[in-house]
Amino acid sequence: MKKRLIGVTMVCVMAAGAIAGCSQNSVKVQIPSSTESATTTVNQVEGKTPKYVFLFIGDGMSYPQVQLTNYYLNASSNASSGNAEEKPLTSSSQLTMMNFPVVGSAQTYDSTSFAPDSASTATSIATGQKTWSGSINVSEDFSIEYETIAEKLKKQKNYKVGIVSSVNINHATPAAFYAHQASRNNYYEIGQELIESEFDYFAGGALKQPTGSDKNQKDLYELAKENGYKVVKTQEEAKKLTSKDGKVIVIEDKLADSDSLAYNIDLEKGEWALKDYVEKGIEVLDNEEGFFMMVEGGKIDWACHANDAGSAIFDTVALDQAVRKAVEFYNKHPEETLILVTGDHETGGLTIGYAGTDYDTFLNNLSNQKISYAKFDTDYVKSYKENKTEFTKVMKDIEKLFGLKAPTANGTTVEIQKDSADSHPESKQDGTLLLTDYEYGKLQEAYKTTLARTGEESTFSQEEYVEYGSYEPLTVTITHILNNKSGINFASYSHTGLPVGVFAKGEVASQFEGYYDNTDIFKQLAKVTGVK
Amino acid sequence: MKKRLIGVTMVCVMAAGAIAGCSQNSVKVQIPSSTESATTTVNQVEGKTPKYVFLFIGDGMSYPQVQLTNYYLNASSNASSGNAEEKPLTSSSQLTMMNFPVVGSAQTYDSTSFAPDSASTATSIATGQKTWSGSINVSEDFSIEYETIAEKLKKQKNYKVGIVSSVNINHATPAAFYAHQASRNNYYEIGQELIESEFDYFAGGALKQPTGSDKNQKDLYELAKENGYKVVKTQEEAKKLTSKDGKVIVIEDKLADSDSLAYNIDLEKGEWALKDYVEKGIEVLDNEEGFFMMVEGGKIDWACHANDAGSAIFDTVALDQAVRKAVEFYNKHPEETLILVTGDHETGGLTIGYAGTDYDTFLNNLSNQKISYAKFDTDYVKSYKENKTEFTKVMKDIEKLFGLKAPTANGTTVEIQKDSADSHPESKQDGTLLLTDYEYGKLQEAYKTTLARTGEESTFSQEEYVEYGSYEPLTVTITHILNNKSGINFASYSHTGLPVGVFAKGEVASQFEGYYDNTDIFKQLAKVTGVK
Repeated sequence: MKKRLIGVTMVCVMAAGAIAGCSQNSVKVQIPSSTESATTTVNQVEGKTPKYVFLFIGDGMSYPQVQLTNYYLNASSNASSGNAEEKPLTSSSQLTMMNFPVVGSAQTYDSTSFAPDSASTATSIATGQKTWSGSINVSEDFSIEYETIAEKLKKQKNYKVGIVSSVNINHATPAAFYAHQASRNNYYEIGQELIESEFDYFAGGALKQPTGSDKNQKDLYELAKENGYKVVKTQEEAKKLTSKDGKVIVIEDKLADSDSLAYNIDLEKGEWALKDYVEKGIEVLDNEEGFFMMVEGGKIDWACHANDAGSAIFDTVALDQAVRKAVEFYNKHPEETLILVTGDHETGGLTIGYAGTDYDTFLNNLSNQKISYAKFDTDYVKSYKENKTEFTKVMKDIEKLFGLKAPTANGTTVEIQKDSADSHPESKQDGTLLLTDYEYGKLQEAYKTTLARTGEESTFSQEEYVEYGSYEPLTVTITHILNNKSGINFASYSHTGLPVGVFAKGEVASQFEGYYDNTDIFKQLAKVTGVK
Repeated sequence: MKKRLIGVTMVCVMAAGAIAGCSQNSVKVQIPSSTESATTTVNQVEGKTPKYVFLFIGDGMSYPQVQLTNYYLNASSNASSGNAEEKPLTSSSQLTMMNFPVVGSAQTYDSTSFAPDSASTATSIATGQKTWSGSINVSEDFSIEYETIAEKLKKQKNYKVGIVSSVNINHATPAAFYAHQASRNNYYEIGQELIESEFDYFAGGALKQPTGSDKNQKDLYELAKENGYKVVKTQEEAKKLTSKDGKVIVIEDKLADSDSLAYNIDLEKGEWALKDYVEKGIEVLDNEEGFFMMVEGGKIDWACHANDAGSAIFDTVALDQAVRKAVEFYNKHPEETLILVTGDHETGGLTIGYAGTDYDTFLNNLSNQKISYAKFDTDYVKSYKENKTEFTKVMKDIEKLFGLKAPTANGTTVEIQKDSADSHPESKQDGTLLLTDYEYGKLQEAYKTTLARTGEESTFSQEEYVEYGSYEPLTVTITHILNNKSGINFASYSHTGLPVGVFAKGEVASQFEGYYDNTDIFKQLAKVTGVK
């Protein structure tokens, strides 16, 4: 029996629906919410039962992503206010989530690994159960389907339910609130469960495999319409939606990589960001009986997989801006609203520090990055490979888009921008980053590999895999160098075992204090909302 | 003006006592404890004023160190119970601190950097003030000396005070509770302030530079005796100490590297660990009026600087066992005891994940390590260098002490021990770790560099510095390879910018919830104990 069903870049070996009891047609078994067995010590809930529940999940967002984003915002505002070198460093909490009164920590391991998967960790948050990496809301022997907090709230309390994601709305994290599948790769079946959920508001990236993996099944959007959903695929139509439109599916009209919302760093003026989908969601869902809205910032994870810190920072900001919309709602209903913000796991092994920069960081250097790794791949690297573009021409784009500059022949040094005052020999100049010969050599080598690479991931040598993962060697080397010159680093192209923060705001927020297991997030949610 | 006074391995450029107002003879200025300006939102303190306050500081201990230690303990107990591959992974909270009801997070930046120093961060915890990296309890213009929480409790509440550290008792972290110096490198002056503090119990590693940096000053131990301290330097004498002995200084009798307590991984049977110094401290300090005890696990930091995960894990366990002693005391006085456990900053950019192992970890491989990097340097590498020992002989020690095995000529693979069930192609065998040719080559190269290295750190190339830092190339390459084969990694040889956990237990523990600044730890401590 395969116990690891999937890594993000791995192909699932299990045929969709092949396991008894796990297709979308199997009987659902209700598991008690097991609040009795919650490991947290608090047993009484003080405060009103929250009628409006927001659950934000930053995929791949743990303490490093949150703290780096906050320090970056402080570094860039310090830099823009000038004269940073003479002043002591300061850092306020610029992220809304950091100002929540309660912040607990949740351990994230799943049944397979200490470096868990998004499907299994979202299962734990949504149902209070552990399962294998790659599985969604099914037991480890695949015989039981777990009912989710969203399903319980809809069924038992008549709450409206909204599911919002910056990635595909049938991707692992959103799926874990309505689907029950042995493999997260069963995208079509997950889409069928989405339609059967009767949830009120789905919004974000497009459905993945809407006609099945072999493209021979009935289009899910058609099925959705037949089942009473209004399907909206343009921003103009989305703007007009109200609570009178009934069940809606809202798909971003300018889809980016893998049919997701654009990275926030690539977002064009006027284009909806995650916060706009949340704002619209509040309008659509708001009702006297209550609502539950899950919002995933899914591309923090994707950016961290690719070791693209700049994009991860701006997508963390995007999630926080969406959180702010919930806080605005909270301010109108402070006694009835609960807001939780958490991550499912850490991605990338991000560190605010790097061997080559010792005790210094240069976070404002990240502001030189103007494009996500994904858009750079699509808009630039693809053409380099087709045209075998000369490296000197490539370097011009790299300088324009990432600020990295080829070493000058006469050895002139361009010094780099620090975050604060210290005795480091470099001093601030224009923020352009001159490559050392060592770094320039790495970029040249990576570009050669990018042009030459044809093989499968499995054929890469140990050294090559550690260096580039399964990413475009040129692109990942650019972000590695920019990261390191900013004083930060990534350790992995996969998820890691760091606990995640659980930021809570609302009368019952204290239920989420302490250091617990991610399954306790569900257990406490069930307890405070009073569902079984 | 130099704004960064020191990094751990840097030499301070500021002459001891050369700055007006910062020598041990300068006038102390009392700064209000500024509870008014605390950023936490809670304003009323529920629960009794704690009469017994324990503050544990894991130097360099943030979430990665705590979580890795816990996962390691689970992995090794799962492995020893056998048949791990067929069972879903489980992980209980084996560390005492993880079971505390409240765990907040504290931002750690100092006036110099987002990757702060131990002197400045301990200043923030002890006085609620930010200062430059390298400074202890003095203002950024060096004109003001801040009174510490320990001094306040002694003066205003007549609490007895204990200061315990696994490193030198005049090292930065312990010093921050009784000294006021522009530079943490003023060891002699710090020692003088230790004696002047009149604190009741100092215990741990020996005083650094007891006769001054030029070895021409009066011995601090003699000075201490003249000032009424009983100085004890053997375990036998230490055992006999009681509260009737008055003020005491207890120095470990089998000092290890830099006159500190031995790494827990190197501890010999019967030798006192940190917990024994805490147990004795409780005996000496316990009195009706109350006490404050600060306990530093100082070598978690040293191990992480050296990227030695095995030693860091066992020193985190040592700290936790010391915490357990406090919990035993708490259980007798639950309404009157407050226990805080925190870190001052993260060290090393430790990640539970590594590019080469994807979603797998093999933490139990770390149990192959039998010796700290420091003891290996002293007991083995020193002699290799003197004797130019052949690499094949060195490899025999490496296999014995770290489990790493040279590739076999016939290509037999020795497979490695996973933490849990999954579809990874390797399967469990004897836990011996066969090096790949790539890894073996790295070790050989590092050994060559170890034998050849004579230069100063400043002469290392960028590549060499990133690879080895200022550590023994052979040793740090061994721990790097063992770490990576265990599925973990370090990013830096310095401190990083991750927030730290603040674990709290006691009636007033809820004052430490949320995500705040490390200065708030002091502010809340002052508030709950009622000092100004």
